[in-house]
Amino acid sequence: MEALTIQTSSRTDLVPITQQVQRVVAQAGFDQGLAHVYVPHTTAGVTLNENADPDVVHDMIEDLERLVPWQQAYYRHREGNSAAHVKATLVGSSVTVPVLGGRLTLGTWQGIYLCEFDGPRARRVLVTLIAGA
Amino acid sequence: MEALTIQTSSRTDLVPITQQVQRVVAQAGFDQGLAHVYVPHTTAGVTLNENADPDVVHDMIEDLERLVPWQQAYYRHREGNSAAHVKATLVGSSVTVPVLGGRLTLGTWQGIYLCEFDGPRARRVLVTLIAGA
Amino acid sequence: MEALTIQTSSRTDLVPITQQVQRVVAQAGFDQGLAHVYVPHTTAGVTLNENADPDVVHDMIEDLERLVPWQQAYYRHREGNSAAHVKATLVGSSVTVPVLGGRLTLGTWQGIYLCEFDGPRARRVLVTLIAGA
Repeated sequence: MEALTIQTSSRTDLVPITQQVQRVVAQAGFDQGLAHVYVPHTTAGVTLNENADPDVVHDMIEDLERLVPWQQAYYRHREGNSAAHVKATLVGSSVTVPVLGGRLTLGTWQGIYLCEFDGPRARRVLVTLIAGA
Repeated sequence: MEALTIQTSSRTDLVPITQQVQRVVAQAGFDQGLAHVYVPHTTAGVTLNENADPDVVHDMIEDLERLVPWQQAYYRHREGNSAAHVKATLVGSSVTVPVLGGRLTLGTWQGIYLCEFDGPRARRVLVTLIAGA
Repeated sequence: MEALTIQTSSRTDLVPITQQVQRVVAQAGFDQGLAHVYVPHTTAGVTLNENADPDVVHDMIEDLERLVPWQQAYYRHREGNSAAHVKATLVGSSVTVPVLGGRLTLGTWQGIYLCEFDGPRARRVLVTLIAGA
């Protein structure tokens, strides 16, 4: 298991981490199985999505803000970041990507993103490699 | 693989199950890899989120109800629980948590929750342990 | 790892793929562990949900369209399919199902679905089998 530290730069932020994860796979000499990419945080998540046009990330962030705006009259949590907790549960805390021949089997336009919902902060990402059957 | 039975207590309910999952890891003498926590149900889910302030769970439930209210004019499913099916797909049927030195690598404020969306019911949770590469 | 090709038939479509995944498990002679079912695409996903009443799929699709309609004034991505990217991140790119005695441990009413959000297209699904600890 390898731990990465990723700095985010705004309250809501999608930071590409594909290269760092691929580097963990390469440095382990790992050939075939699954790479599990996980954040031990409750106001951040991990997702796979388009890595080519940055407008996709813009549109995803706008939609997440529309679905779960920062404030609601019924929110009780004193820290004031309940929206970030909800987004984390909707997006999920991890992704698992097949590895074949030492490479993440990502589609051409597919990248791994750390999803920040209550930044900016330094976030930890844990990468666990699991051999295939 | 170990099966847990968890009783939920209302239609929408987030039940903490971290201790039960940690017990499965300990009893198996499992040291390093992944713990997969899964519900074989279509109107329940599993998520990771804050385990400290119960107001976070309150706010998460309120937001899920706002996003997917119990009734819609276009619902056709006769059982009347379509909203629960949608919430299950948004939250997801499983989480996978890295294990290191026999411990779930959860953040300080992070817990595992069984998410009930059509309770109260007795739900099954399957825990599968997978050794790291 | 096995690759399946699945043809979808409309813009938003949930295609049952349980039998194809079970066939991969059987042909591998795989007994116990996890089956990881993954789409290397950014406008499709994978989920577990009811396989009995097709009205559940209808209601799920209607709700996903309500939550993330095809157009928004703030969308910038020129391809025009940002809603599909958002749905893919909300639903997720993979599911992981425990296998016991050579069978996917699905509940009676539970099936695996490829979720198309920008079809119709031919989609790839990768199935990776991981032995239990």
